[in-house]
Amino acid sequence: MSAVVPAPLPFDPIAEASRQWEEHGWAEAAPGMAAVTSVMRVQQILLGRVEEVLRPHDLTFARYELIMLLSFTRTGSMPLSRIGARLQVHPTSVTNAVDRCEAQGLVRRVPHASDRRTTLAEVTPAGRELALKATESLNREVFTSLGLSRRDVEAVVRVLARFRSGHGDF
Amino acid sequence: MSAVVPAPLPFDPIAEASRQWEEHGWAEAAPGMAAVTSVMRVQQILLGRVEEVLRPHDLTFARYELIMLLSFTRTGSMPLSRIGARLQVHPTSVTNAVDRCEAQGLVRRVPHASDRRTTLAEVTPAGRELALKATESLNREVFTSLGLSRRDVEAVVRVLARFRSGHGDF
Repeated sequence: MSAVVPAPLPFDPIAEASRQWEEHGWAEAAPGMAAVTSVMRVQQILLGRVEEVLRPHDLTFARYELIMLLSFTRTGSMPLSRIGARLQVHPTSVTNAVDRCEAQGLVRRVPHASDRRTTLAEVTPAGRELALKATESLNREVFTSLGLSRRDVEAVVRVLARFRSGHGDF
Repeated sequence: MSAVVPAPLPFDPIAEASRQWEEHGWAEAAPGMAAVTSVMRVQQILLGRVEEVLRPHDLTFARYELIMLLSFTRTGSMPLSRIGARLQVHPTSVTNAVDRCEAQGLVRRVPHASDRRTTLAEVTPAGRELALKATESLNREVFTSLGLSRRDVEAVVRVLARFRSGHGDF
């Protein structure tokens, strides 16, 4: 992912791809192709924007999600295995994020009180404070600045929730 | 990205995050947060699915997009610099994809007929054939199998096009 901003194209490349799909006799698949390509492209734009806002806080999106998740729990801690399920990422990604956050003093590993084989990640006061500050930046510079109407934002959330539910997310 | 499929959560983690946002006094930013997180998550699911379908064809999504783009041109070729603009990816990613495709015999580098300083990537007959086969797989296994109504698919494409346009894509 990069911060390179190429010049706008004089046409919508996804609409152009749809036209090509129809021309090749794949009209039935054209809307799905356009939807998949749109999600890929918008994710790329959003991730670039989010990481740009998080960089001054010395956070990546993965580490931000980790400290936010822990901050939201009653005890400020969660078993590593449950973090993966909640953030819907691979155990290796959880380990990496916890390692980095631990080195930054945002999270520490603690043994589970009753189950010695379970390791918890616990957010530190510094982690909580940074999570709050980073959220304020993201709220201001990304989440309330998407440039879409409330109606459009809610439509995306609703339709993508149907997709996520249909793909076993919840 | 991984093919690990965790068990479904008993609740929608994005709806839960929205609730937390509202509880913390960030109600205004909650829909935008939910939209951004939804796009990130759906992209992850889709990329996993697309790469799963492309793997038997020995392609990644980046390489698939490259050979499709070239197959769609009149001459089957395009300057490397224009490929980056069209696929909206960093020049380094274009170089990597062209390198890998060249090693696989799907693409070759050729000098521009009139401008010697410009290098073109040209799709080979094997590249065209593979692009077609991979597209048939993607059309069947992903693009026509999203599990969403035509209306939902079109709504996503339409709203995300407004977002892309607002962010300088075209």
